[in-house]
Amino acid sequence: MSRRTLEFWYEFASTYSYLSAMRIESLAAEAEITVRWRPFLLGPIFHAQGWDTSPFNLYPAKGRYMVRDIERIATTRGLRFALPKAFPANSLNAARLAIVGLSEGWTPAFTRAVYSAQFDGGEDISDWDVLERCLAAAGADFAVARERAGTDEIKQALRAHTDEAAVLGIFGTPAFVTPDEELFWGDDRLDSAIDWTRMIEA
Amino acid sequence: MSRRTLEFWYEFASTYSYLSAMRIESLAAEAEITVRWRPFLLGPIFHAQGWDTSPFNLYPAKGRYMVRDIERIATTRGLRFALPKAFPANSLNAARLAIVGLSEGWTPAFTRAVYSAQFDGGEDISDWDVLERCLAAAGADFAVARERAGTDEIKQALRAHTDEAAVLGIFGTPAFVTPDEELFWGDDRLDSAIDWTRMIEA
Repeated sequence: MSRRTLEFWYEFASTYSYLSAMRIESLAAEAEITVRWRPFLLGPIFHAQGWDTSPFNLYPAKGRYMVRDIERIATTRGLRFALPKAFPANSLNAARLAIVGLSEGWTPAFTRAVYSAQFDGGEDISDWDVLERCLAAAGADFAVARERAGTDEIKQALRAHTDEAAVLGIFGTPAFVTPDEELFWGDDRLDSAIDWTRMIEA
Repeated sequence: MSRRTLEFWYEFASTYSYLSAMRIESLAAEAEITVRWRPFLLGPIFHAQGWDTSPFNLYPAKGRYMVRDIERIATTRGLRFALPKAFPANSLNAARLAIVGLSEGWTPAFTRAVYSAQFDGGEDISDWDVLERCLAAAGADFAVARERAGTDEIKQALRAHTDEAAVLGIFGTPAFVTPDEELFWGDDRLDSAIDWTRMIEA
């Protein structure tokens, strides 16, 4: 990996990942760092911890706090935020599509569109109609992308991402991994992750 | 409560509370805000969530990350950090002593001494010899404080703190509560909590 690349590991149903997805490219560009987008599924990692849903559902006080915390932060960044009806969303199709986009270059724009649809628009991102609009916003061909998303190659690539996340010690998202494998967790650590990457000798 | 007071809710065994305890007074003073120190026990709140120990023990990946995260932050603040052998510590006696100190004014200095002994010195804060040194560092009389800490009045006052924390929606520490009852959680939200308090109209 280039010495000036920061990996951005995210789950599409993750509320705090929304905050990071909307700002990581501009922050990284200022620091002359390249972002490597790493979509994966947090579900299997949560499941291994004994959780069958989001910790924000398992622990209601934490869930209520999360909503208020993100509302406050979103306001300062000119974003809107509300939980969609189905939370956490089933993010499998979105994640497979994002894997398809990695070789075609549209994953960042698609990811932002999915997060906006979900946490600004309140839409259900397991719905193919929603995903079709997100692909269009990213300039991707829906029919082609949907077909590729269903192939074994893509399914396996997504599983490999998720396995790699576990190996890296990732237990929640967003997570950021520097070229020297320092792990930073949470939107509130994004600036530190960028600073760390910037300070590594080329 | 005064319009310029920020409540600092903390558990003595909490690693991130250590970070906040060491800097909250200087940050608040710059903003002309008074800190109200609110020691309580997180154990009963964790227990109500089904946890019998720290989440950093229940979820080892999270625990490993926490240690590294705090090491990085501590370095930038000129602090040292290591987990003590017994983690989480039994913090009952420290918390009762801190309640005693509220009416005598030495709770902030005592609290900082306890956190330093535990997370810099690696000491067991359930040990009365350790607590005696922490009281001395805070200018408090050990024999008097220890006797008061064992009274029903103090035990009940600590229970009342813990009950109030639950009512406020606190589920982890450090937590900060503004005069208009906005809750902020985590050392990384301390600056936001101070800004929020500062912006409230007097």
